[in-house]
Amino acid sequence: MQYSYRQLAERISAEIERGHYRPGARLPSLRSVSEQHSVSISTALRCYRYLETRGVVEARAKSGMYVADRGRVDLRLPVTAVVARAPVAYDKLVSLQHRLTELYSLTEQDLPLALHLASAAPDWYPCAALAEIARRQLQRHPTRLGQYPTGTGWPALKQVLLKHLGDCGVDLQPAELLITNGSTEALSVALRAVAQAGETVIVESPVYFGLLQMLENLGLRALEIPCTVAGGLSLEALEYALEHHEGVRAMVVMPAFQNPLGSAMSDKNKKRLLRLAEQYDISVIEDDVFGDITPHQERPTPLKAWDRQGRVIYCGSCSKSVAPAYRLGWVAGGRHHSRIVSLKLSHSLVTPWFEQVVLAEFLQSGALYSHLRKLRERLAANIARAVTVVAHSFPRGSTLVSTAGGWWLWLELPPTIDCLALLRRAVAEGIAFTPGIVFSHTSKYAHCLRLNIARPWSAELERGIVRLGELAQQFV
Amino acid sequence: MQYSYRQLAERISAEIERGHYRPGARLPSLRSVSEQHSVSISTALRCYRYLETRGVVEARAKSGMYVADRGRVDLRLPVTAVVARAPVAYDKLVSLQHRLTELYSLTEQDLPLALHLASAAPDWYPCAALAEIARRQLQRHPTRLGQYPTGTGWPALKQVLLKHLGDCGVDLQPAELLITNGSTEALSVALRAVAQAGETVIVESPVYFGLLQMLENLGLRALEIPCTVAGGLSLEALEYALEHHEGVRAMVVMPAFQNPLGSAMSDKNKKRLLRLAEQYDISVIEDDVFGDITPHQERPTPLKAWDRQGRVIYCGSCSKSVAPAYRLGWVAGGRHHSRIVSLKLSHSLVTPWFEQVVLAEFLQSGALYSHLRKLRERLAANIARAVTVVAHSFPRGSTLVSTAGGWWLWLELPPTIDCLALLRRAVAEGIAFTPGIVFSHTSKYAHCLRLNIARPWSAELERGIVRLGELAQQFV
Repeated sequence: MQYSYRQLAERISAEIERGHYRPGARLPSLRSVSEQHSVSISTALRCYRYLETRGVVEARAKSGMYVADRGRVDLRLPVTAVVARAPVAYDKLVSLQHRLTELYSLTEQDLPLALHLASAAPDWYPCAALAEIARRQLQRHPTRLGQYPTGTGWPALKQVLLKHLGDCGVDLQPAELLITNGSTEALSVALRAVAQAGETVIVESPVYFGLLQMLENLGLRALEIPCTVAGGLSLEALEYALEHHEGVRAMVVMPAFQNPLGSAMSDKNKKRLLRLAEQYDISVIEDDVFGDITPHQERPTPLKAWDRQGRVIYCGSCSKSVAPAYRLGWVAGGRHHSRIVSLKLSHSLVTPWFEQVVLAEFLQSGALYSHLRKLRERLAANIARAVTVVAHSFPRGSTLVSTAGGWWLWLELPPTIDCLALLRRAVAEGIAFTPGIVFSHTSKYAHCLRLNIARPWSAELERGIVRLGELAQQFV
Repeated sequence: MQYSYRQLAERISAEIERGHYRPGARLPSLRSVSEQHSVSISTALRCYRYLETRGVVEARAKSGMYVADRGRVDLRLPVTAVVARAPVAYDKLVSLQHRLTELYSLTEQDLPLALHLASAAPDWYPCAALAEIARRQLQRHPTRLGQYPTGTGWPALKQVLLKHLGDCGVDLQPAELLITNGSTEALSVALRAVAQAGETVIVESPVYFGLLQMLENLGLRALEIPCTVAGGLSLEALEYALEHHEGVRAMVVMPAFQNPLGSAMSDKNKKRLLRLAEQYDISVIEDDVFGDITPHQERPTPLKAWDRQGRVIYCGSCSKSVAPAYRLGWVAGGRHHSRIVSLKLSHSLVTPWFEQVVLAEFLQSGALYSHLRKLRERLAANIARAVTVVAHSFPRGSTLVSTAGGWWLWLELPPTIDCLALLRRAVAEGIAFTPGIVFSHTSKYAHCLRLNIARPWSAELERGIVRLGELAQQFV
């Protein structure tokens, strides 16, 4: 009887499942399979290739085919490069916008486990302290609501931010800092200051989809440069790209911590990055919004600290670390600062005072440091728990990148799993995550996902992650 | 003895001052002057022309030269067109940015009479009521500060705004409205949605300088179309410009109330404007931020009410009418709405929730209507007082345009007065106003000024206006 390769593959799979071949065992050669099942060599080959893409078997060079060792999820420490693999067949013509539209429509309902967000749960923020300061301010200065704010930011806020930045190694004067409507506005005006429509801007890959949309809306072309989970932007790839592409004007980087990888760039590489930027005369926009969000008790030094030429445009925010609802960001534009101020003023005039006044008082009180210490302890504890749960629930062949910073885990599932399809299934059970496909114009990350774990640990959260792993198993 | 025309002019001026010729009296003919003073006819002519530009004499067609009747300031009702006159010699190369830089540096100190602002004094706003709502909200929902806001605006705010707009004749659905960081952001994304860098946008003249800066920063070219103080944008001039300029993509108009003229467009003209926009297929951005600010108890119907094609992009705000510190605006983008939403999201993500929640509760309470009634009564009383004071203090030959709306008076001083120079003198005495020169790329309005009168009437304010008039006299 002639088998098709799929029938043959099912048969061999069943034998593996029944223990006829143990994990790690050598499988029969192509010739043996051909003779044993009366199929052609080419059918045997297609069968093994099919099983390989499903993660059931693995080829070893010059040695033959083995049963895949799927005993545990590969808990990779951040040492390996994220390799481009695109077995999920996405139409190249399907734009990022379509993917995001589906993500938004899937997640617009209130979900019990909305693990697709890029912020922590309200419980993790100092809401009560901020509300108390706000109430006192309203009592003391009610007419402040009637005053048109002016200038580049509430002076007291700028002062305390400069102190905080100084503690991180970034020394600035008040005139060098501008308060914005969140770091998104900071990024937007920074990009408009350094690049004109039609020009090219380097971004990391994978990268926060909001940045890709912003570039598209500004008429800028994104050049995606691969990241390593160990060290963020690959400087080798960056240098190669700079050698081969003309007219690159700027790059946007997240040295700490890259969204969605959670990776951190070493100080040595930050200096190397700056030297490359000088050599090719391009501006560097540093997005530091996640810089304070780490399971370790110390934050990395921003790239800006090594900038002696005013080449780095530094963007920060309180939306991740202190108050998501505040939408306050800041930008230190270096040599582009006056242009950035002019663009910001003409886009949205000033940034509201009230939140600035409250945030300033919160920071002046020194409460930030105890808040961050608690936040980081909670994050570290949750990462440890989540890693264990993921390792026991997700399909064999998954890779979990334990995070250096950020609110989430980044998971690479077996390459045949379409995480957007997985999301559709998961949302039906009240669980959302961010599918990797939205973090690039390519389909490289279609089998990846970003999973937010920044909320009080609960049986519900644990069950949710386990269930997500079970659903993923169905897609293997 | 041969006189130069300037010496001759001084002599004739002195004779007028001494009462040798009374206001309104006919002056000697050119031939008589020529014979009497032994000058050539052409010197006599230059002399009279010089006196005419100084407002000392006036020519009457086919009748000769008369002593100007400067007995009182011309209290023009809004019926005459603002005519281009540019006797103040500004270097054409001096850009708007330089003028504004000087304005900002002159007014950055705290001045007792900062009458250059475009908002009312804090006392005129419902600060206490808003602060009370805010305090209650903070007590009730402290963790709301920890939540990342999402979507196109706080649903309850959108709902009550739609009701308010419906009362004005503008019927919209929630999906057609987007909340922005002030109307400035609304304008900015509207412009980006309808015009590309290098294209031309029609604006009113004189016009709010922030709009001119915004266009420049977006790489758009401004085509300034004259306004009449009676009816805002001159439709005759608009039609002429549309006939003669190719590639106009959009126009920005303030039918109620034009900043800085304070003029209102008639309903008939709004409909005519829409027909012209259809005929030439251009988008109309309606800036309605001052629509509620009028000394009359009824506000005009927005242009948007007559829009059946989704051609009008409507921009509103609470910064002028309710809470200057809130920086909340909204935009109904018609056929461009989805593009506008996308641009806004990618520029600054969402608009902060907290102020939206407070404003929604304030509007739901119905307090807006009693607030506006009181505001308008105060404005009407102040306009009446200020008009009297100006009429008695400012130089003969000044024209005061009594305002249909807005927080200010618009004054045209005698054409030889440089209001930027006047501002330098006035600031030294603690009084600021907005010099006309910043309301155009041209120098047409160098002899004009905008004077804010929206604050509790006081002896200090009255003395300030009187003193400003005295200072202006020194520039005649």
